[in-house]
Amino acid sequence: MNSPTAATLPITGDQRLVKNINRIALLRLLREEEGLSRADLSDRSGLTRSTVSLLVKELIDEGWLRENEVIVTGQLGRRPTPLQLDGRRFVLVGAELTPDTIRVVTTSIQGEVLEANEAALRQVDPEGACHQLVEMISVLVRRVVDGGREVLGIGVGLPGAVDSQTGVLQFAPNIGWRNVPVGERLRAELESADLSSVPVHYQNEADLAAIGETEFGPRPADDPLVYISCGVGLGSGIVLGDTMFTGATGAGGEIGHTILHLQGRACSCGRRGCAEAYVGLRAIAADAGLDGKPEALKAAMAERKDQARAAFDAAGRNLGVLLQNIWTTFDPKSIVLGGEAVALGGADFVDPALQVLASYGEAAGVPAPTVRLARYTEQAVAVGGAAYALYALMHPYQALLQQQR
Amino acid sequence: MNSPTAATLPITGDQRLVKNINRIALLRLLREEEGLSRADLSDRSGLTRSTVSLLVKELIDEGWLRENEVIVTGQLGRRPTPLQLDGRRFVLVGAELTPDTIRVVTTSIQGEVLEANEAALRQVDPEGACHQLVEMISVLVRRVVDGGREVLGIGVGLPGAVDSQTGVLQFAPNIGWRNVPVGERLRAELESADLSSVPVHYQNEADLAAIGETEFGPRPADDPLVYISCGVGLGSGIVLGDTMFTGATGAGGEIGHTILHLQGRACSCGRRGCAEAYVGLRAIAADAGLDGKPEALKAAMAERKDQARAAFDAAGRNLGVLLQNIWTTFDPKSIVLGGEAVALGGADFVDPALQVLASYGEAAGVPAPTVRLARYTEQAVAVGGAAYALYALMHPYQALLQQQR
Repeated sequence: MNSPTAATLPITGDQRLVKNINRIALLRLLREEEGLSRADLSDRSGLTRSTVSLLVKELIDEGWLRENEVIVTGQLGRRPTPLQLDGRRFVLVGAELTPDTIRVVTTSIQGEVLEANEAALRQVDPEGACHQLVEMISVLVRRVVDGGREVLGIGVGLPGAVDSQTGVLQFAPNIGWRNVPVGERLRAELESADLSSVPVHYQNEADLAAIGETEFGPRPADDPLVYISCGVGLGSGIVLGDTMFTGATGAGGEIGHTILHLQGRACSCGRRGCAEAYVGLRAIAADAGLDGKPEALKAAMAERKDQARAAFDAAGRNLGVLLQNIWTTFDPKSIVLGGEAVALGGADFVDPALQVLASYGEAAGVPAPTVRLARYTEQAVAVGGAAYALYALMHPYQALLQQQR
Repeated sequence: MNSPTAATLPITGDQRLVKNINRIALLRLLREEEGLSRADLSDRSGLTRSTVSLLVKELIDEGWLRENEVIVTGQLGRRPTPLQLDGRRFVLVGAELTPDTIRVVTTSIQGEVLEANEAALRQVDPEGACHQLVEMISVLVRRVVDGGREVLGIGVGLPGAVDSQTGVLQFAPNIGWRNVPVGERLRAELESADLSSVPVHYQNEADLAAIGETEFGPRPADDPLVYISCGVGLGSGIVLGDTMFTGATGAGGEIGHTILHLQGRACSCGRRGCAEAYVGLRAIAADAGLDGKPEALKAAMAERKDQARAAFDAAGRNLGVLLQNIWTTFDPKSIVLGGEAVALGGADFVDPALQVLASYGEAAGVPAPTVRLARYTEQAVAVGGAAYALYALMHPYQALLQQQR
């Protein structure tokens, strides 16, 4: 009964944390398989039955779990009570900051969108943007609290790479930010709004969208999963071994700057021949004869203009080569396509990409991996922010390691 | 004292396993930082002091740890005794099977090569090859046992991708094997040789070489680390988050089949323009006017023939583009180059690759990541096999998940 045990990755002797890890282990088991009993949980976790009973009671009292009715089977003896995730008492908050728009959502812990709001970005400087962001978050949080529910955390998606060591947004070219300590700024704003007790997380937008797919998708989650964010920038979010992969410095997954055409077009990054210079929205708008202005693509596609459709087709073919390279590099369980280019181009963009990928698969005699569209379409990043707030709770070590500031 | 705790990834209620995880946690802490005391280990692991004392005693008795002398500092009170890894009692066995050669080594748990042996492969069929392999392993193992030491495990590197679900070698084109249940074969041979009690592991050669770099290199290990194996085949082994990454089906890291030249040369895989068709040894031998025969490159390079050197230079430039793509995809802490092409081509191959990588870094205004040569040169895979036997002990969950058969 007094079995000495510990977490596999020792970081701290804090007993509250260790207890927390056990609670999380139980929640994760029930997330993978609904209806497990206390005895099942004990068997699968290696925790004693008395510990499981204690923790399950706590989790029921707090609103994380509920007991289901026992099905009478006619067998002798007391039937074990099936348990399942509840969480109706909890809400997650997600947000996305783009160069021109702020989106905020609240979701349940199962990923249902409860409320959503969107507004044009008033000021592009970090102070103004973070102020507006927290202002919009506050409105939703107040409504959650007034409704008697609790906010578990906030996740914010940013249009650039976040250094995993320092928590600083390194470079967000499309909004013109460089080395911005976003965390400090957000926490200061949350304090002014009297929300300093809510944990806040932030990450590159594609990373969050990937987490949105794995945390809120069907169980077991597809793994490895590569989310490709097709917009003005071309990036990816990668989930490997149930962990968000961000590389040594936070710049992992920058697939838009892999070379597709040796000595090809000049890319905004300074290199030549990068995928983004062929698949990014500015390139598509240039090919469409729209002077490189992505905002003009919407009207052109609404009118089904041939040159715009041809531009999406050419970009899609290049995307197909990139998909082939991602396939052979990651051997993913699924690849997910999202972002504005997918929304604007639709089948004119996606179909040629899938055709090229399939033709590589045929040539090699191996079926290409599953490619599907983002579950939450234009809300993928904001919902991904909410998912990341849950991920941080469910993966305390990974979140600690990824955002130690 | 009776704190209920458990491992983060619950798989089993087996208390021996849970105890084992705690032992491993202590060994890993001491591997990262030599000289920790029992009190330090308790603080960092979250285990109680009495549990730590118990486990440390066991680990000392078994030969895993030793106590260092206490340094007298003049301070009052009993000085804590510094601990460190010992392991002189243990030996690891590694092996490599190539299309023409078998290599076997024994190493210490710190990665020193104790003995090495090499022989031409007598028969290329799976039965004959596995028989010869285990024959060679037996000779070394007998010597270890006669010397009073214990073999912890055997790791075998194979020239193809191993399905992580079934443990079957899927396809090894250069030796002509397809769907070979290598595990069964090796275990049958080990049983005949009266070695069935020794755990045996096997994996793709590049994966093992990568593990050799991280398990036996300086601490903390570089992470992410990408090992590029340049031979007739062009593959990679990837370590992410202290875990060997093999993809959804074991085919992860097949970077030799990412496209470098759209509509380029036909590749052995059936696609066009793959990196292997430009950087693999057969391509280099063809460019060198040697009829695509890699075995002729050795003499040509020994004579410093211009055409052979030019072929390595061209291949190196293509490798440089691949390095740039790996950089932006993985944001690795280091990239390691190994394999026969590196041995044969030397600076004629590696320097142009580094130049191309550096020029991409300059264009983007970002320093390129560290690229270095494999620590164990031509023994990289065999030593990697030994390292993998240690990795399997130190990462019981990952090894379980990767080789559940």
